[in-house]
Amino acid sequence: MRRTDWNAADAATRAALLRRPVQVTAAITTTTVAAIIDEVRALGDAALRAYGERFDGVVLDDWRVGEAEFAAAETALDAELRNAIDEAAARIESFHRAGMTSAYALDTAPGVRCERVLRPIRRVGLYVPAGSAPLPSTALMLTIPATLAECPEIVLCTPPRRDGSADPAVLYAARRSGVSRVLKIGGAQAIAAMAFGTASVPRCDKLFGPGNGFVTEAKRQVAMLEGGAAIDMPAGPSEVLVIADAGANAAFVAADLLSQAEHGPDSQVLLISDSDALLDAVAAQVDLQLAVLPRADIARRALQSSRLLRVDSLAQAFEISNDYAPEHLILALRDARAWLPRVQAAGSVFLGDLSAEALGDYCSGTNHVLPTSGAARFTGGLNVASFQLAITVQEVSAQGIAAIGPCAVALAGAEGLDAHRNAVALRLRECVA
Amino acid sequence: MRRTDWNAADAATRAALLRRPVQVTAAITTTTVAAIIDEVRALGDAALRAYGERFDGVVLDDWRVGEAEFAAAETALDAELRNAIDEAAARIESFHRAGMTSAYALDTAPGVRCERVLRPIRRVGLYVPAGSAPLPSTALMLTIPATLAECPEIVLCTPPRRDGSADPAVLYAARRSGVSRVLKIGGAQAIAAMAFGTASVPRCDKLFGPGNGFVTEAKRQVAMLEGGAAIDMPAGPSEVLVIADAGANAAFVAADLLSQAEHGPDSQVLLISDSDALLDAVAAQVDLQLAVLPRADIARRALQSSRLLRVDSLAQAFEISNDYAPEHLILALRDARAWLPRVQAAGSVFLGDLSAEALGDYCSGTNHVLPTSGAARFTGGLNVASFQLAITVQEVSAQGIAAIGPCAVALAGAEGLDAHRNAVALRLRECVA
Ligand SMILES: [Zn+2]
Ligand SMILES: [Zn+2]
Repeated sequence: MRRTDWNAADAATRAALLRRPVQVTAAITTTTVAAIIDEVRALGDAALRAYGERFDGVVLDDWRVGEAEFAAAETALDAELRNAIDEAAARIESFHRAGMTSAYALDTAPGVRCERVLRPIRRVGLYVPAGSAPLPSTALMLTIPATLAECPEIVLCTPPRRDGSADPAVLYAARRSGVSRVLKIGGAQAIAAMAFGTASVPRCDKLFGPGNGFVTEAKRQVAMLEGGAAIDMPAGPSEVLVIADAGANAAFVAADLLSQAEHGPDSQVLLISDSDALLDAVAAQVDLQLAVLPRADIARRALQSSRLLRVDSLAQAFEISNDYAPEHLILALRDARAWLPRVQAAGSVFLGDLSAEALGDYCSGTNHVLPTSGAARFTGGLNVASFQLAITVQEVSAQGIAAIGPCAVALAGAEGLDAHRNAVALRLRECVA
Repeated sequence: MRRTDWNAADAATRAALLRRPVQVTAAITTTTVAAIIDEVRALGDAALRAYGERFDGVVLDDWRVGEAEFAAAETALDAELRNAIDEAAARIESFHRAGMTSAYALDTAPGVRCERVLRPIRRVGLYVPAGSAPLPSTALMLTIPATLAECPEIVLCTPPRRDGSADPAVLYAARRSGVSRVLKIGGAQAIAAMAFGTASVPRCDKLFGPGNGFVTEAKRQVAMLEGGAAIDMPAGPSEVLVIADAGANAAFVAADLLSQAEHGPDSQVLLISDSDALLDAVAAQVDLQLAVLPRADIARRALQSSRLLRVDSLAQAFEISNDYAPEHLILALRDARAWLPRVQAAGSVFLGDLSAEALGDYCSGTNHVLPTSGAARFTGGLNVASFQLAITVQEVSAQGIAAIGPCAVALAGAEGLDAHRNAVALRLRECVA
């Protein structure tokens, strides 16, 4: 891993050290995805069937998961995994439920009642990738806030396996959240189908969930198309930034760097410390642990672009972190909590040596769908509000018009909007007369 | 205004009636805006100066509004307008403050503390257009939530007038919210400057506010560019949908339709009723009121694409409204509140005959920056949370690792992520040993 003394670096070097690799979507990907979207819009289910055969290697007469498959999935899982899913779900649900937005109302003037009411987004589409491994944890992170928001129509797409079945752990996770409309459709075609609808896939208002390059590009495209769907957030490679002091446990820090690195060759890994000894020890531990890792190849490629930064002070480390705005921020610090107020931009923060980032991925209770690529400068991760609308309401009585009407008349006059002024003045006349 | 019997219309006609006009951004606009962004990035303040001369007809040595100009603005305003701004600000502030998100924390398991903390977005850029009339109300709607969120750096751009000064009402509104970094820069060049920074304009993380076609296109472009800024929401022409019953006041309804129509020729205006008599009366009132309106030309053009829809029942009216998802929804109904639960998608709702939409534009207390073009299917309007980050935090003790570590190990195993499993297992061993 490349190591740099931050204070010996000039501004250009510093900027380069924190620059994320530009996500170049190959022109061929953009074109392919656009073609898939066009075909799904034009041909509907027939296109889904053809793409399923081509990309997933399986032709399904019916991609809806039925009762029998749900039941078989539950039986197929061993009890330990089932329990782990149940346990994680309970904590994720309790954390998300506690953070739900409330409706509220107040009289801003006598006779002027203003309120915020909440409504679930009517039709939401969730995508759970399969790829190199099934992701029951992602199924939990998407279905739990969607069901807490009480979205009336929730559809979940996930790629079929070669034998035509869906991953049993994903099915079990979805079902226990109350999501039973699971469709075995993968890739860009699943995104296109949920954004525009087909005979068998409902058109959705907003799409959620991670995916490979094709899925990400499809989400980007449907979000821009007239009549397409909104998406949860811009997607980039997963990231961790660790700030560690001399007292940190080098083995733990190395394990966290590696768990980030194993996500994919484009994973972003940064370690910042004010201690040379700690940096040395972590580098040694990374080598040691890497040697026995099954996904060592992926991790090794990710580590090639990772950085160890030596700073003069922890205060400086926080400045760097706030500029970088990492998806995951681990504070392997003595009295980590005392440093929390310094965090100005990050997706999720892990306090102290024992708070492994993997706990947040699975089962601490927080959501693992988080802002990447610096989006943590301006947005947080997924939560129940991501599946809701906040609608404002006002109800004005005759007393209310008398109280605030003149104010509106004055402002409409200043802005030269006579019809606005008239709409209020008419009511004022009627009520005051 | 075109009138249609909804139940006599076929599906294609219905879809056409609710279709918003496609916002075609002229290729020339796209290209011009891209060139402006490039120039501002390359030349900074020099580009701003040149564009100011070209588009605003004024060369400013310094576009920062100084103390003297703020003081002069306050003096220039008559007391009535100053009071109206103060009064509106107080109500907007009380409504927005009451709706602020809270931090929270809970133990999801013994020794596992999970929380949500809130941080202001560090650098926000507000845009207040001038155009046909100054918009002090927009200055209030942007600055009040930004200051309630306590964003440490708030910059507000607004176009200079021919004499080089900014509109005094906009200055007064901004200053009373505590925003004193006001720059007299307009158009796409202001958006580019705030997104990428220049010597005199700070680079912002997120941009807010309405604007003309160039501003909207510039926001769209900077949101997509590498290293650009996030934006508040997709922008489209302003819209109102009114649901009125036989008992509604036709003059009030007509006044509301016209106040929407006067915003611009592309404003969207829809009236739905189960009463032919009411539709007749409103149409007559529109003609009557239009005759004396200064902005009658604009309103008349907007009304050309407006619609009066006759339905069989109010229930049907709500179905149409929920599919359309209007920015503003007026319920000119007897017992309007009883109908509120039917509203599933809208930006802001106005209950009853007296709740003129113009009150929401100015001074009821709700925000007037609202989702347009159907975005109310998936998002609400501006609020304090739009200026904040919600960051999740987890702090796990030895007891906590013992409680939830095995769950994470099981899930990481199922997902084939060994480094994740290892990161937790290492800590488990250390703590349980
Ligand atoms: Zn992970
Ligand atoms: Zn208006």
